[in-house]
Amino acid sequence: MIIDIHGHYTTEPQALHTFRDKQLAGLADSARKPGSADLGITDETLVKSVEPQLKFQKERGGDLTIFSPRAGGMAHHVGTEAVSLEWTRICNDLIHRICTLLPDSFVGVGQLPQSPGVSPKNCIPELERIVKELGFVGVNLNPDPSGGYWTDPPLIDKWWYSLYEKLCELDVPAMIHVSSSCNPNFHHTGAHYINGDTTAFMQLIQGNLFKDFPALRFVIPHGGGAVPYHWGRYRGLAQDMKRPLLKDHLLKNVFFDTCVYHLPGIELLSKVIPVDNILFASEMVGAVKGIDPETGHHYDDTKRYVDQLRLSEKDRLKIFEGNARRVYPRLDKLLAKRGHGNRK
Amino acid sequence: MIIDIHGHYTTEPQALHTFRDKQLAGLADSARKPGSADLGITDETLVKSVEPQLKFQKERGGDLTIFSPRAGGMAHHVGTEAVSLEWTRICNDLIHRICTLLPDSFVGVGQLPQSPGVSPKNCIPELERIVKELGFVGVNLNPDPSGGYWTDPPLIDKWWYSLYEKLCELDVPAMIHVSSSCNPNFHHTGAHYINGDTTAFMQLIQGNLFKDFPALRFVIPHGGGAVPYHWGRYRGLAQDMKRPLLKDHLLKNVFFDTCVYHLPGIELLSKVIPVDNILFASEMVGAVKGIDPETGHHYDDTKRYVDQLRLSEKDRLKIFEGNARRVYPRLDKLLAKRGHGNRK
Repeated sequence: MIIDIHGHYTTEPQALHTFRDKQLAGLADSARKPGSADLGITDETLVKSVEPQLKFQKERGGDLTIFSPRAGGMAHHVGTEAVSLEWTRICNDLIHRICTLLPDSFVGVGQLPQSPGVSPKNCIPELERIVKELGFVGVNLNPDPSGGYWTDPPLIDKWWYSLYEKLCELDVPAMIHVSSSCNPNFHHTGAHYINGDTTAFMQLIQGNLFKDFPALRFVIPHGGGAVPYHWGRYRGLAQDMKRPLLKDHLLKNVFFDTCVYHLPGIELLSKVIPVDNILFASEMVGAVKGIDPETGHHYDDTKRYVDQLRLSEKDRLKIFEGNARRVYPRLDKLLAKRGHGNRK
Repeated sequence: MIIDIHGHYTTEPQALHTFRDKQLAGLADSARKPGSADLGITDETLVKSVEPQLKFQKERGGDLTIFSPRAGGMAHHVGTEAVSLEWTRICNDLIHRICTLLPDSFVGVGQLPQSPGVSPKNCIPELERIVKELGFVGVNLNPDPSGGYWTDPPLIDKWWYSLYEKLCELDVPAMIHVSSSCNPNFHHTGAHYINGDTTAFMQLIQGNLFKDFPALRFVIPHGGGAVPYHWGRYRGLAQDMKRPLLKDHLLKNVFFDTCVYHLPGIELLSKVIPVDNILFASEMVGAVKGIDPETGHHYDDTKRYVDQLRLSEKDRLKIFEGNARRVYPRLDKLLAKRGHGNRK
């Protein structure tokens, strides 16, 4: 089974965008607020909206996508905490409906109603709802709700601890994923995303978070930002800071996906990061939409790169399925229940 | 000849730090201002201070280091523009003295008296001084004088244009190098540096800067941040944005150094970036000081990695010398005058 752990819903129906416009217009003029949170999107429209996603999934040989709301759309920096909460619930509910309509293709991951300067504790009710009521298997956690100004505390600060407690209790991992950037210095998918990944990993080196939360699991997307390319730098910085070896300090709890859009990058990733810490993903349909003239295939068809790695079949299976089922235990249980065997 | 294009003066005499303390104390209490900009540092002390640098240079087989003030020390976000200017002149003057005392080992590159929110135009007098009077061959340009809050405009904004005009007129390249971070989210050498590199490159993709300044040359340090690892993403983003191929859009003007502290990283760099765009560098004595237990050698002994690449000797010579002399034409002239032949 090929599990893509990183897919966002980027082909949403127009009705969702119309709602968002009205919601934000309502900040300036309350008369423009949307009358209802019912978007009037039919099941048929929803299924149709994910056809591009399903077409790629099928063509490329994927089976199941861990599906979450558009990352850039979370935009936690926009509006108030109440706006963030309303928007989050609507986005998560759409994911839930899609996963219910197409359970063999999609499993849900949610966004959180974060807001800059607001305690992450306030996200707990929505986290409980999406896991317990909607059956989501993980969550996206934005390390910079300010959208490119990084005004909240680092991930190792106690500021985040109540949320981590709940993640451990619910046994769901968090993908550390920023949203759009309102800082003109940072192109969102070309700079802010990658910087967010790099920044988060370095924060984890500085702290001792997994001593406090041995069961907490983070996925760093986009191949870990700059981290594998600079693996020597990070090993060396940890050493200079008298931290344990990275494999002991972080790699029991931190995982990287394969959203790296060329073969040399994926080769590097698999060379320096242990196979147990690599989870297959494409972020399709996402950041890069075109076809690479050097290969004739879509840049984000990352399965082709993984297929080309010199790996044992056992290791390849870990990347495509086994690691995902280990890092997302609720997914594993779901698949076992559906007859897809046990991950062991 | 082995030219290391990226060395900072990180072993400064205590007198420099004492001056800086007094200078910044003077912001709060003018009675504590230093009485004089004369630090009382003798030539003997200066030569002694760079002994660690010279020892490594010799042991590792380097010949010449392009030497600039400590990057983290620039701290453009601290104090006023006047403080930045005074500090900059003192730091540049020390570099000049070292390069005069040890001309076979060091050639100077300067810092600029940047200050957040202040026009880069104000840096022009110091830029002219260091190039025309001190004989410096390049300059470090901080894309984020705020120190981690990124409050100034992106590098492609006209905000920077007067400085670029002067760089072209003087025919000196700029290394795009952030300074220390006052944002607790960003470890300075582990996150802010690498993010700065990635961010700058993405800004250049978005703009069309080298159409306006065909002669402008930027060096992106630390192996280009995350860029080579995500080369497919950047090629794809440029394509989606209808930009020309990166080799045409940027690679006549943008160069990467080899400050990547493990062999797989350097291998990736040399695989995806054309050899004409790679300049040897170590940033020694710098970000990472330890010895890699996996190799038994210093992480930042980057010459060992370059030596291990499968390259023609012609290409290796480009990385070690030829490209540096092309990108830094004032260095080339200096070396030719000293009898080191012509780069062609």
